[in-house]
Amino acid sequence: MPSVITSTATLPPKSARAGSAKTSPVRDLLALTERPDVISFAGGLPAPELFDLDGIRDAYAAALSTPAVLQYSTSEGNARLREIVAAQYTAEGLPTAAEDLLVTTGSQQGLGLFATTLLDPGDVVLVEEPCYLAALQTFALAGSRVIGIPSSDGALDLDALDAAAAAHAPKFFYTVPTFQNPTGRTHDLESRERIAASAMRYGYRIVEDEPYRQLRYSGDALPSLAHFAPDHVLSLGTFSKVIAPGLRIGWVRTTPDIRPAVTIAKQAADLHTSTIDQAAAAEYLASGRAASALSRIRAEYAARRDAMLSALPSALPDGSTWNTPDGGMFVWARLADGWNATTALGEALAHDVAFVPGAPFYAGAPDERTLRLSFTTYAPERILVGMSRLGAAFQTDR
Amino acid sequence: MPSVITSTATLPPKSARAGSAKTSPVRDLLALTERPDVISFAGGLPAPELFDLDGIRDAYAAALSTPAVLQYSTSEGNARLREIVAAQYTAEGLPTAAEDLLVTTGSQQGLGLFATTLLDPGDVVLVEEPCYLAALQTFALAGSRVIGIPSSDGALDLDALDAAAAAHAPKFFYTVPTFQNPTGRTHDLESRERIAASAMRYGYRIVEDEPYRQLRYSGDALPSLAHFAPDHVLSLGTFSKVIAPGLRIGWVRTTPDIRPAVTIAKQAADLHTSTIDQAAAAEYLASGRAASALSRIRAEYAARRDAMLSALPSALPDGSTWNTPDGGMFVWARLADGWNATTALGEALAHDVAFVPGAPFYAGAPDERTLRLSFTTYAPERILVGMSRLGAAFQTDR
Repeated sequence: MPSVITSTATLPPKSARAGSAKTSPVRDLLALTERPDVISFAGGLPAPELFDLDGIRDAYAAALSTPAVLQYSTSEGNARLREIVAAQYTAEGLPTAAEDLLVTTGSQQGLGLFATTLLDPGDVVLVEEPCYLAALQTFALAGSRVIGIPSSDGALDLDALDAAAAAHAPKFFYTVPTFQNPTGRTHDLESRERIAASAMRYGYRIVEDEPYRQLRYSGDALPSLAHFAPDHVLSLGTFSKVIAPGLRIGWVRTTPDIRPAVTIAKQAADLHTSTIDQAAAAEYLASGRAASALSRIRAEYAARRDAMLSALPSALPDGSTWNTPDGGMFVWARLADGWNATTALGEALAHDVAFVPGAPFYAGAPDERTLRLSFTTYAPERILVGMSRLGAAFQTDR
Repeated sequence: MPSVITSTATLPPKSARAGSAKTSPVRDLLALTERPDVISFAGGLPAPELFDLDGIRDAYAAALSTPAVLQYSTSEGNARLREIVAAQYTAEGLPTAAEDLLVTTGSQQGLGLFATTLLDPGDVVLVEEPCYLAALQTFALAGSRVIGIPSSDGALDLDALDAAAAAHAPKFFYTVPTFQNPTGRTHDLESRERIAASAMRYGYRIVEDEPYRQLRYSGDALPSLAHFAPDHVLSLGTFSKVIAPGLRIGWVRTTPDIRPAVTIAKQAADLHTSTIDQAAAAEYLASGRAASALSRIRAEYAARRDAMLSALPSALPDGSTWNTPDGGMFVWARLADGWNATTALGEALAHDVAFVPGAPFYAGAPDERTLRLSFTTYAPERILVGMSRLGAAFQTDR
């Protein structure tokens, strides 16, 4: 036996990848948005009063009529639930079988499963600039090198995508094609065709994240990228925006070549998603109540979007710009020359209103004039009060 | 724009770490155990008829009385649930605050969070030989180098632990100290003190996985390793064995130095565990019904263990050995000289009975004579029928 060392040795350090996942510098500021008197357009929260609490409670009671829902289940997930999701894809023009799908604990987990399956430290991932924040965190924890693809005039720079693909041999391009977080931007049909063609030409995969797809308030539905490049596209979906986020039920749609590896990654991640939540989600979707709840949610969110858009001209400084999303939860704005969104947030909080500065969403150099406004949390009248406060904040700060 | 390449480029390969997670060679054999006529001692499944279905259904109904349970929640988890778990630790002699705990989607996820927080590719992890299979999978996916610490006479070889720690500077030692999976073995008080002292001396952490702690049928409770080395020990717990596994609710008990990194890893893993399942678990525990259900489960599992132990002498070949666990779900046996457990499984399946060969549980060279028998799934009479079939199989194979 080795000789006794009396002093305690130092604890080993954390992993390098844990150190590379940064906490956001605006997190402290955003903690202030939780004051009850603040009208916060910062969070990406669905409206709880629109949840179908009664329908969901009935679905849980039905699911909990058999002890089988209390037992361990398969990593792939509830067969009935996967058949319902597969039928939705097929009805929307993308033929899908239950075997193509694996149920995840929210679509955030799906992102992690693809990272585990595809990324080794140092591998390159292409992202849209700006990009969904938690995706950047996942790719950082995988030790990957993230390269942002810029936009011009609100559309992805497709030549920059081709050039980055040629230069860096990426493992995949991560995109939220419809009503993106944070920008609300949707890739049009031609962009989708060209992104898919680029993946096929340069031999990289596409991870298509579609949390907002079913929250469309205007315009026509667009095909999945998988329609144009079926072997190259992996998709992520979720019920967080159409049933409720508290269930934490999402799914991945995989290509056959990586399916066994994704299943092993899922086993290692949490064995399987809650048997009870999965069975309740299947009950709820089969009951027909989900479809009517979604119609109600869409109509109400459309009114909220319109209320915010109507108030923006008087709320933001002259010379600011913003987009008009056809769906989702977010409006993306760019303040007039000379403004800084992080500085402006301080003044906004003094007026009991909040938004998220755009800077943390950038993988590379941020545009400090940008900000994200969520329009789903409050009824239209309350949105107008908040926008009026925002106008007052920008007046004060001038 | 680059010139068009007409042929489709090859898809990029999977990650090296995904390739290193092996599927088990006995998996095909075990698929046969799902035939309804097979009495399977192979799975580690709790007995569904002992679940408190009514109590759990009532808890979900109570939790689903407010829309707040349908909303996103914090990554740390339900405050009430964490307070209940903290009070349990404190009552058992290990002072614990709610802030020390983070709720996970089963304790399997906790293992992944510690891997993300602590392991870079190439880092060394020490494990008990044999070891819980899904832990080996998690460490393989983290790209770590796993070194098994052998046992002698059913107890961990503590000199080998010290020697491996001195030679390899491990990040942590992973242990299931109480009623281990697969062996049912429990580290006694002296072993616990020495394992803790080794971690302090050589400066590595201990990840203590305690899924079976509350399933004790004989003997006295033993202190957590954290009692002896509070700065070095990270613990994993779960309700899978005491409420039901379908909820997928576990927790990690962390030291303050890694808590922010674990929280970020949890955000990246799945944002948070199901708000509904967490609230229902807290309701159920607070109702007092969990304690009486656990008493019933313990009494019944003790009877099942005793039934299996009583039948083992006539079931296994002469010269075989096995242990007498004080709790948990498993008996570990070693067949007499000349036998091979994987070969024997084929004959057992021909007699409609199954077990798991021990070989897949080894990180290094396996002991091909070992096997694991789970005693929790069936009532005592059915266990005796299965053991009688096992005896017939070994007679045939002789």
